[in-house]
Amino acid sequence: MKRIFEAESTVRLWRQVYQTYTLLKTCEDQIFEEYGLTTEQYGVLVAMGYLGSPIRITDIARWLERSTNSISMIVDRMVKAGLVTRKRDRSDRRVVYVVSTSKGKNALRPATLASLEAIRKILSPLSNEERSTLLSLLGTVKYEIIRYLNPGVDIKEAKRKELEQAANVKQWLSEYGLPSTPQAKRQGGDKRKTKKKTE
Amino acid sequence: MKRIFEAESTVRLWRQVYQTYTLLKTCEDQIFEEYGLTTEQYGVLVAMGYLGSPIRITDIARWLERSTNSISMIVDRMVKAGLVTRKRDRSDRRVVYVVSTSKGKNALRPATLASLEAIRKILSPLSNEERSTLLSLLGTVKYEIIRYLNPGVDIKEAKRKELEQAANVKQWLSEYGLPSTPQAKRQGGDKRKTKKKTE
Repeated sequence: MKRIFEAESTVRLWRQVYQTYTLLKTCEDQIFEEYGLTTEQYGVLVAMGYLGSPIRITDIARWLERSTNSISMIVDRMVKAGLVTRKRDRSDRRVVYVVSTSKGKNALRPATLASLEAIRKILSPLSNEERSTLLSLLGTVKYEIIRYLNPGVDIKEAKRKELEQAANVKQWLSEYGLPSTPQAKRQGGDKRKTKKKTE
Repeated sequence: MKRIFEAESTVRLWRQVYQTYTLLKTCEDQIFEEYGLTTEQYGVLVAMGYLGSPIRITDIARWLERSTNSISMIVDRMVKAGLVTRKRDRSDRRVVYVVSTSKGKNALRPATLASLEAIRKILSPLSNEERSTLLSLLGTVKYEIIRYLNPGVDIKEAKRKELEQAANVKQWLSEYGLPSTPQAKRQGGDKRKTKKKTE
């Protein structure tokens, strides 16, 4: 019976992570659809905003931890939708870059704001302490999976990289995660402080 | 700055759920591959073991919360791999059932045991208290997403259903989540108590 009990608690936790993720994904799909994007296309735009455009497919793939092939297929559809274009390198014709169109660039900020607002709402029942507990417990599980998948991996190095990424996320958010552009802010056009959110 | 800080902590938590899930998925893919299955195919076998075979595609799809179309494609590949067969209903030829082959049935138990063992290992750094904290915090997020996706949903009803499912998981585990078959156990062939796991 003890074995069943252990297995059951394990499966329940597993299912909880799975279900939470699946629901999150459904949520994102809905939000980005309103901006004419799939969640995957949004991810590509984020990578391009983050790494700078023009950029190669392989760089986007590495950043999103996806295969070059799958990113290439997503980019194909984005070209059709007018969100990006492909452009050959002038000096080396074999190299192909992906370039954001103004349509793609213009979709990124409002889609980011809408998804941030949704996540903020979804996480609102958690106190700050609960958030950091959840972050840390998931982190423990995550690093244990990394260990499981790559025996002998340098976890310290993985954690260092993560901190680096966190700093980059902050930088990225200050560029795309605020309602007004930095220019508008400098010109005193920032209405955030006077306009209170009711939700 | 406060806004950036909030957005940052939100994004970090979001990424944590996403990364944990993605790594879990990679882990499962590796495990099930050793038993000649994809994770999706394993899911279909679980549904069939759980709901009983023969079963219709639509029932499997509903249970796994996937579209009938995607399950149909998975089943196509499973037929080719000899894991299941399709069979028409005798009285109503329009109805098609999916039936497990012995190959499919035989793959289910060892694949389940291997994945349980992996999850057990991955969750081992968490104490019982930490597990239930993680389960409950993820639950809070999950129900908030359900609320977000279906305003006015009856959360009590959703929670009741969940408890029902948990009871079913227990039942299922007692059938597929133990090393030996119930018959073997009754015949005194259960070697679990004498054979200690070293990992």
